[in-house]
Amino acid sequence: MTLLVLLRHGRSEWNETGRFTGWTDVDLSDGGKEEARNAGERMRDEGLAFDVAYTSVLKRAIRTAWIVMDVMDLMWVPLHRSWRLNEKHYGALQGLSKEEMAKEHGAEQVHAWRRVFDVRPPPLDASDRRHPSHDPRYRGLLPDELPSTESLKDTLQRTLPYWFGEILPRVREGGDVLVAAHGNSLRALVKHLDGISDEDIASVNIPTGIPLVYEMDGDVVKERRYLASPDELSRAKEKASRAAAFRH
Amino acid sequence: MTLLVLLRHGRSEWNETGRFTGWTDVDLSDGGKEEARNAGERMRDEGLAFDVAYTSVLKRAIRTAWIVMDVMDLMWVPLHRSWRLNEKHYGALQGLSKEEMAKEHGAEQVHAWRRVFDVRPPPLDASDRRHPSHDPRYRGLLPDELPSTESLKDTLQRTLPYWFGEILPRVREGGDVLVAAHGNSLRALVKHLDGISDEDIASVNIPTGIPLVYEMDGDVVKERRYLASPDELSRAKEKASRAAAFRH
Repeated sequence: MTLLVLLRHGRSEWNETGRFTGWTDVDLSDGGKEEARNAGERMRDEGLAFDVAYTSVLKRAIRTAWIVMDVMDLMWVPLHRSWRLNEKHYGALQGLSKEEMAKEHGAEQVHAWRRVFDVRPPPLDASDRRHPSHDPRYRGLLPDELPSTESLKDTLQRTLPYWFGEILPRVREGGDVLVAAHGNSLRALVKHLDGISDEDIASVNIPTGIPLVYEMDGDVVKERRYLASPDELSRAKEKASRAAAFRH
Repeated sequence: MTLLVLLRHGRSEWNETGRFTGWTDVDLSDGGKEEARNAGERMRDEGLAFDVAYTSVLKRAIRTAWIVMDVMDLMWVPLHRSWRLNEKHYGALQGLSKEEMAKEHGAEQVHAWRRVFDVRPPPLDASDRRHPSHDPRYRGLLPDELPSTESLKDTLQRTLPYWFGEILPRVREGGDVLVAAHGNSLRALVKHLDGISDEDIASVNIPTGIPLVYEMDGDVVKERRYLASPDELSRAKEKASRAAAFRH
C-alpha cells in the first residue's frame, strides 16, 4: 500500500487583511507556520515518511513543505516545485480587498468569481506588473500556459496533467508521496481521487494544516482519512467552510 | 556570461564538539545559520539570482541552501539534492573526537586521514548502524556506490560525475547556478575548475559562508572572486586554514 498525503497550507499574511491572493507570492503568517509544524509533528508521531514531495512555486506552500520536512527529519527527500500546483489565479482581483469587491460588485458576483466552477474573475492585462509573464519563475512556460485569470475549471485542467504525468507514476512505483499545496489545486486532486462532480467540488472545503491521507493501491484509493481527532477535524472543517462562506 | 556560485556551509553542531562528521547528518549551529543568512544577504545586495540550485542530502548543506533561497526571495528555484555532493565519508571515525583520535593514533595519522589525497580512514563495517546502507536516503544507490570510507580522491571521483552530468550542462545552457555543499565536495569542483594538482588540492581551504563566484562562458572560467571585502576574506581564510591545521 502506498501513501499519498495532501496538505493544504495554513494562514498567510494576506488572510489577515482579507485580500485576494491567487498567484501573489505572500508568505505564511506565524499562525500558518504553526499549522505546518503541527501537521509535521502529527505525521512524525504517526510514523509516516515520504520518498518524494511536491509543491507549487509559491512560498506559502514551499515553506509549509520545508517546515514539515524539517520536523519529520526528511530534509533530504526530493521536493519538486511546479506552477501546476499553484493556487487558482484570481486575475485582476489579486491584491484587492474581498470586502471592497463585495461592496462594489455585490456578494453574489464575488461568490461566483470564487466558487462557480467555470466563472473567471476579470483578467489581468498582459502589461500589468502582476501578470505572470513578468515573473522569472514562469519564464519557461508557453504563452498559452500563462493565465491572466482562472476559473476553478481552468485550475483543475492545468493541475491534473501534473498528477498524471509526475505524481501518479511515483505512486504507482510504490513511492510514498507528500503534496503541499493550495485550496484549489488540492481540490483538483480530491475531485479526481474521490470522483466528485463539477457541481459539488466548489463546496468541498479541505481544512488547512490537517494531513489528508490516502492509502493507494496503484491508482486505486483503498482508504482516505484526515490525520486529526474527530474534534480537531470538525473544528478545522468549520473554520474552512466559514472562510469559504466569506464572512470576514 | 553565466554565474556559478559555490557556497560552503558554516559551523555545524559538531564543530563545537570537535568530532568527525562526514556523512553524519548533523544540523547547522546558530552560528552556521547566521553565516548562511550573511551569504544570502551579500548575494541579494549584489543583485545575484539563480535559475537552479544544487546541494547534498545532508541537512547542514540543505539548510544553508534554504536560508539563502529564503533571504534572496528565490524559494521557487528548483533545488536538487544529491549524495554525490556530500562531505567526504570519514568511515569509522565518524562521531569520534578528533582530539582523542590524535592522542590514540598520533597527530600525523589523523592529518593523513583528513588531508592526504589518497589515504582512507578505517572503514565502517557494513553491519555498523552508521553505515549508509542502513539509511533510507541512500536506498537507490548501487552497493558499489555506497562508501564505507573515503579518501579525498574517492570524494572527488564520485562528485565529478555530478558536475559533468548535471551541473555543467545547466551552466552551458546559460543557467545561473548555486551549489551549497561541503569542504571536500567543493574541493572537487574547485580542483577541476581551477586546475589544481592532486598534491596541492588538500591545502586549498575554501572559507565557510563566503560565496565563491565563477563567471563562466560555457565550461571556461572567465573570472573567479569571493563575495567579501579583502578584510573579511582574509579573516575567513585564516579561520578555514586554522580549522584545517587542526588546532581545536
